[in-house]
Amino acid sequence: MATLARAVDEALAAVKAAHPAHAATLEIVGAGSITLKADEEGLCALAAERGWSLRFYPPAVLADVPVPNPSDTVRRYTGTPSVSEAAALLTALAEGPEALLVEKHKVQGEDGRNATVSVARAETSDQLCFSTPQRQLVHELLRARRDMRHFLAGCALHLSVIERLVDAVQAAPSVGLMQPWRILRITDAALRERLAVMVDAERERTALALGPRQAEFLSLKVEGVREAAELWALVMAPDDGTLFGRRTLPREMAWCSAAAAAENLWLAARAENLGLGWVSLFEPAALADILHLPEGAEPMGLLCIGPVGRFYPRPMLSLQGWRQARPRDAWFGENTWAFDPPLPPDRPQ
Amino acid sequence: MATLARAVDEALAAVKAAHPAHAATLEIVGAGSITLKADEEGLCALAAERGWSLRFYPPAVLADVPVPNPSDTVRRYTGTPSVSEAAALLTALAEGPEALLVEKHKVQGEDGRNATVSVARAETSDQLCFSTPQRQLVHELLRARRDMRHFLAGCALHLSVIERLVDAVQAAPSVGLMQPWRILRITDAALRERLAVMVDAERERTALALGPRQAEFLSLKVEGVREAAELWALVMAPDDGTLFGRRTLPREMAWCSAAAAAENLWLAARAENLGLGWVSLFEPAALADILHLPEGAEPMGLLCIGPVGRFYPRPMLSLQGWRQARPRDAWFGENTWAFDPPLPPDRPQ
Repeated sequence: MATLARAVDEALAAVKAAHPAHAATLEIVGAGSITLKADEEGLCALAAERGWSLRFYPPAVLADVPVPNPSDTVRRYTGTPSVSEAAALLTALAEGPEALLVEKHKVQGEDGRNATVSVARAETSDQLCFSTPQRQLVHELLRARRDMRHFLAGCALHLSVIERLVDAVQAAPSVGLMQPWRILRITDAALRERLAVMVDAERERTALALGPRQAEFLSLKVEGVREAAELWALVMAPDDGTLFGRRTLPREMAWCSAAAAAENLWLAARAENLGLGWVSLFEPAALADILHLPEGAEPMGLLCIGPVGRFYPRPMLSLQGWRQARPRDAWFGENTWAFDPPLPPDRPQ
Repeated sequence: MATLARAVDEALAAVKAAHPAHAATLEIVGAGSITLKADEEGLCALAAERGWSLRFYPPAVLADVPVPNPSDTVRRYTGTPSVSEAAALLTALAEGPEALLVEKHKVQGEDGRNATVSVARAETSDQLCFSTPQRQLVHELLRARRDMRHFLAGCALHLSVIERLVDAVQAAPSVGLMQPWRILRITDAALRERLAVMVDAERERTALALGPRQAEFLSLKVEGVREAAELWALVMAPDDGTLFGRRTLPREMAWCSAAAAAENLWLAARAENLGLGWVSLFEPAALADILHLPEGAEPMGLLCIGPVGRFYPRPMLSLQGWRQARPRDAWFGENTWAFDPPLPPDRPQ
């Protein structure tokens, strides 16, 4: 790793020296090499240490990239005339070889082994590349998002905030570009109160259904319909018949699309330092009735959005001892289903 | 606006002067005032100009915040003894008044009107606050995410990348903390090929079902199952009986949870500058059979993840003229359902 680290540091120092104005803000958007090197400890250790997004390209993909310094020797050993230049250009999503800032920087280590490093500039085209610190920020956001039920009551959001939240939904994926979700922003106070009363009733019914955990459930705050600055009803539109990607699971794929849009909204709200809580405590028919939904439209949730006093440090149900998250191995496996049967939920564990 | 801008700039200059080491990196995490001022043009215009997340707190919420300089005069006019100090502390998610960096900075404008500004330091507690540029980065990510079908064939991701993608899923919300999703990472090449053949068959069936648009559909690249570096099967686990939040829509809420997790994965992949495509072209029973899923488990999608040559500048279906996204007004409304009936989809528009 020492030789490689030296080669990288020298190459980056050369870039900084050549571009002093950008030296302070230079960040890495990723590291790439050839699939042959996927097990090379030095490279993997360096990428881990520096947090680089590391990927490996096969010879055929590398060979397709026009580079300034193709080499027959490299081709003989690897099947592609360029590894480092081509991998750098691919990792930077570069349009052409002019994106290379350092073509080939070769270093021979004290152990006699060689390292060759190329550096390409990202965003020489319209392709947005995220850097290591930017990616880390995204993960901070994912970790900081909470399903909130405690809101500061009676707050209001400026319209520009609402607009950005709407932008986040509009950017969501949907099956066949169907965009099957509809959102009704509830600004009518009497309507909000009717919705709150309906949610109260479902809370009682859920408590009854929970049997021995009824009292514990009732001690939890499970929604913020009355308090949240904004209340948005998320609704599945009447089916428009989209076939693309949903011939076999039409309803499920539409719901998945709307849920992905809701997750965008959730993250965008958290990025405004606002809480969001998805309330699913309602009878669909009752909610459809209150909102005068047309035939075929289905209520999905009441989304409470607004300023909070504090974000829960962990999911509230976990904090309150209602239930704990599964470890990753309980849901991530390889090739073959070997997961434990689900634990009895909603019970002390 | 001029007076307010002057007050803010002077207050921030004072903060920078007192904390020279942080002056260069000081960023705003939000702006707050009292609900009475929700329509004040100067404040709204300044927030818009500077991209601040602006919210308004009601007197009762502001009055609850301990502040160093409560004022009877302010209370008489607004119903709370503090507006600016309390709003600054709330917006910064501060734990106590010691987070105030500027208590009250008052400026009288040439028009005789006053502006009072307080500044509180965010992240004096465990509460993560996102700044304006950080929030803008999140929106860049949301806009840059694409449903990808074109991948560089034969690439590999380093295990540390896989681990981070798994982290993004683990951070997802789920109804009642149910985490109903399961993911099988397909590393067996023969298994991947069987899945690809199955998807090919469904592509043909979808093409037939599309009637007059059959040839156009077949000209589109609709999946990257064979090429993508990683292929993950997203599966709904057999129902564990969770009641919390899903007494009335149990299956739907479980699917929504898994879809929100998939959206986290999508965004995390894009933050690694990797593409992800959700393939839903399959017969669920056939996929369940190939994966030997247990009774009650349901396939949701095949997720293709990996390096791409380029990200589409717009959704591919839109680029290819298959279908265009709806304008926001087509899905975002207020109180009452007043959306147009859906357009005939999957047809030239």
